[in-house]
Amino acid sequence: MIATIITIGDEILIGQIVDTNSAWMARELNRVGVSVLEIMSISDDEDHIVSAFAKAEQQSDIVLVTGGLGPTKDDVTKTALCTYFQDELVLDEATLQHVKDLFAKYVKDKLLPANETQAMLPSKATILKNEYGTAPGMLLVNNDTTFVSMPGVPFEMKALMINHVIPYIVEKGELPYIYHRTILTAGQGESTIAHRIEQWENLLPSHVSLAYLPSLGSVRLRLSCKGMDKEQVTRDVDAQVDQLYGLLADIIVGESNDETLSQQISALFKSQEKTLAVAESCTGGQIAQQLTQHPGASQFFKGASVTYATQSKVDLLDVDQALIDKYSVVSEEVAIAMAIGARKKFKADVAVSTTGNAGPDKGDSDVAVGTVCIGIATGDQQYALKFMMGNHRERVIQKTVNKSMELLQKELLKKAVI
Amino acid sequence: MIATIITIGDEILIGQIVDTNSAWMARELNRVGVSVLEIMSISDDEDHIVSAFAKAEQQSDIVLVTGGLGPTKDDVTKTALCTYFQDELVLDEATLQHVKDLFAKYVKDKLLPANETQAMLPSKATILKNEYGTAPGMLLVNNDTTFVSMPGVPFEMKALMINHVIPYIVEKGELPYIYHRTILTAGQGESTIAHRIEQWENLLPSHVSLAYLPSLGSVRLRLSCKGMDKEQVTRDVDAQVDQLYGLLADIIVGESNDETLSQQISALFKSQEKTLAVAESCTGGQIAQQLTQHPGASQFFKGASVTYATQSKVDLLDVDQALIDKYSVVSEEVAIAMAIGARKKFKADVAVSTTGNAGPDKGDSDVAVGTVCIGIATGDQQYALKFMMGNHRERVIQKTVNKSMELLQKELLKKAVI
Repeated sequence: MIATIITIGDEILIGQIVDTNSAWMARELNRVGVSVLEIMSISDDEDHIVSAFAKAEQQSDIVLVTGGLGPTKDDVTKTALCTYFQDELVLDEATLQHVKDLFAKYVKDKLLPANETQAMLPSKATILKNEYGTAPGMLLVNNDTTFVSMPGVPFEMKALMINHVIPYIVEKGELPYIYHRTILTAGQGESTIAHRIEQWENLLPSHVSLAYLPSLGSVRLRLSCKGMDKEQVTRDVDAQVDQLYGLLADIIVGESNDETLSQQISALFKSQEKTLAVAESCTGGQIAQQLTQHPGASQFFKGASVTYATQSKVDLLDVDQALIDKYSVVSEEVAIAMAIGARKKFKADVAVSTTGNAGPDKGDSDVAVGTVCIGIATGDQQYALKFMMGNHRERVIQKTVNKSMELLQKELLKKAVI
Repeated sequence: MIATIITIGDEILIGQIVDTNSAWMARELNRVGVSVLEIMSISDDEDHIVSAFAKAEQQSDIVLVTGGLGPTKDDVTKTALCTYFQDELVLDEATLQHVKDLFAKYVKDKLLPANETQAMLPSKATILKNEYGTAPGMLLVNNDTTFVSMPGVPFEMKALMINHVIPYIVEKGELPYIYHRTILTAGQGESTIAHRIEQWENLLPSHVSLAYLPSLGSVRLRLSCKGMDKEQVTRDVDAQVDQLYGLLADIIVGESNDETLSQQISALFKSQEKTLAVAESCTGGQIAQQLTQHPGASQFFKGASVTYATQSKVDLLDVDQALIDKYSVVSEEVAIAMAIGARKKFKADVAVSTTGNAGPDKGDSDVAVGTVCIGIATGDQQYALKFMMGNHRERVIQKTVNKSMELLQKELLKKAVI
C-alpha cells in the first residue's frame, strides 16, 4: 500500500514552523507496512490543494492530509475537499454536539458562529471524532484511493491517527511486513565504512536495501526489507546484520531502530536501577532536557546543574576555585570535579558533566572555540575526555550532547557485562 | 519569483528524521522576496527525482534540492541530475583538490575511491564550493528555471545558501518586498478572536493577508503583504496592525516576527544588563536549553538547577523540607522557594522556577497530572502562579516552558516601563 502525505499551511511555506507531523505519520504508516511515496507541503490555496489531491490520488492508495481545518477564513481545506469530491457541506449533528460540549467544558462561553461552522462537513465524508478539538477527521474515498483529512495540531492529529486511521488501514489491507534494523557506528566516516563493506554490499540480495545515515560523530547503517512473509523478511535482514557485525566489530556501538540514544539510556538506567545526575555547562540543559522528555524519567533522573557561569560551578557543585585557576574552566580536571560534585549533590549513582566553549566568542576560558571536556563519575571511578568539536555553535552543542550520551551508554553497558 | 523545494532521502519518508532544512530554506527565500509554492519530500529513487524535477520546473523559477549527494550507493541525486539535464559526470579538479585538503586536515588517511567520486560532477553545472564537506553545490539552468542541488547536512546546506544561493537570487531578480508582522495574543481562542475582529477582517485590502496561528496557550496573527514598493507594502501592513492593536488591546502580549520568545527574552536581559537563574523541575532543563541555544547567552544566563527529585530541591536550592511537607512539592509556596533559592545560589537578578506533574503517572506529589506552578523572584518581589496544563506529557512540558517565558517577558517589560 502506497501513501502520500499532504501538509497544508502557509506557515510551513514561509518557514514559520517546521512540519513535524509528516515524519510522525510516515513512521506510523511504515510500522504497519505502508510505504510513503511523497510528502507535499502546500499553501492554503484551494486550487493548489485540489491539484495536489489529483496528483496524490494518481500515485497512491491512501492520502493523509493535515491542516487548513480551523474556524477562520484562511483555512480552506474543507472547501477544497468539496470541490474535489463534488460535494457540499452539511451540518453534522454529532460534531455540533461535541463542539458544544467542548465549549461548555473548557471555554465556558457561548458558541460563536465560527465554532458552529466546524460542524459543517462534506456530506460524503465518514466523520472521525476528534476528542481533543473541534475539527473532526474526514474520510472520503475516490477510485479506490482513501483520503483522510485531519487538523494540523499535532496531538489532535496523533489521536485521530492512532484511534481511527491506522486501524482503518490495518483492517483494509493485506499489508506487507516492513522490517528495518539500524546499526550505530562511531569513529569512521561513511566513505571509509562503505569501502570496508563494499564486497558485502555488492552481494546484498536485491530485496534488502542499505542506507548510510551520517550524523555528527557517527554513521547509522539501516537495512530494510519488505515482504508478505514476516519470518522470511526478518531472517533475511538479520542474516545480513550478523555479517555486518563481523565486518565492523571495531566501530559498531549499538543498534537503534526507532529508539533514540536518550531512550536507550533511560531504559538502561531503569533496568539497572541506577540513578543519574548531570552537570552541564556548554550544553546548557540539553542533556537534562533530552533525558526528561520521556515518561518515567523520575525513576532514574535525579537532576542537573546547568552551571553556565564559572562561579556557579564553585557555588553549586563545589568545584575548587584553585582547580579552575590552575587548569582553566574548560579542562578535564574541572569536568571530573563537576561530575563528582553533581553525583554527590544529587546523591546519584552516575554523573556526567560537560564544560566547553561552544563559541562564537571565547568565554571565561582561554581555550579555543570548540574545545569540550566531558566527565563521568561513578562510585568506582571518574574520568574525563577532551574533544575538539569544530567552530559551529549549534554543532558543538549537539555533538557534545551526543558524545555525552554515548559515553553514558558505554559506561552502563560496561557495568552490565561485569 | 516562485520557488519549489525538493528534499531527497528515504530517511524522511520512513519518518526517521524530521526535515528541518525546508523550513530554514523557506524562511531565507521569503526574506529576499521569493515565494515558496511547494515543498516536496521524495525518496532516493532516480525516476521519482526526475519526475519531481519536471513538475518543479513547470511551476517555479528556482528549484532548491537537498540530499542524496553522499559518496555511497544509496545516493542518486547526481545521476538524476545527469538524466534530467542530458549531461554526464566529469572530474572537477578544484573539487578533487578540496576533498584531498579536507582529508589531509581532518581524516589523516588516504583518499578512497568513493571520496574521489565526490569530485565527479555534471559537466553543465556551475560548482558552488562546500567549505564544510566533500559534496559541492551544483547550479544548473533549464528553460529559465534555475536548479540548485545541495547536500542534506544542515550546516553544509546553510553555508551554501548564505554564501552562494541567496546572493545569486538577489542578483538575478527584481524581487518584490515581502513583509510580515506577527502579533502575539494570549488568553483567547482563535474563533473568539476571529469573531472580535470580523468586521475589520472583512475590510482588509485584498493584497494584505491574515493568518491565524494557534499554538499552546496563544494565537499568533500574521499579516503579510508583498509588492515592489517597499514603503507602500510596509505602510499598508503597519496601518492594519495599528487597528488590530486598538481592537485587541486586552489580549495582545507582544510581537514576534522571526524571533522566538527565547530570543526576545535574551535580548531583553542583555539590554537591561540583568542576569537570570532558572530552577526547573517538570520542565527538565528545557527552559535552560532554549535560552542557551543562542550565541552570547553567557552575558545574562547564570545557570539552572534541574531539581527533578524532590530531595534535590532541598539539597541544591535550600527549599525548606517543612514547606514541601506542608504544601506538597507542587505548590506555589515551593515554586517561590525554588526561585528564591536559584536567584541566591546563582547570584542572579531574576529567577524563574517550575514545579509540576507532567504525567503520565503521579510523581512525588498528590496533585493531579497537569498541575504546574511557576515562580518568579526578583530583588523586589517574588510570586508564583498555578496552572492546569492538561494531561498530555509533552504538551504539559511545552506549555509550561512557554508560560514561563511569557512570565519572564512580562516581568522584564514591566521593569522597562518603570
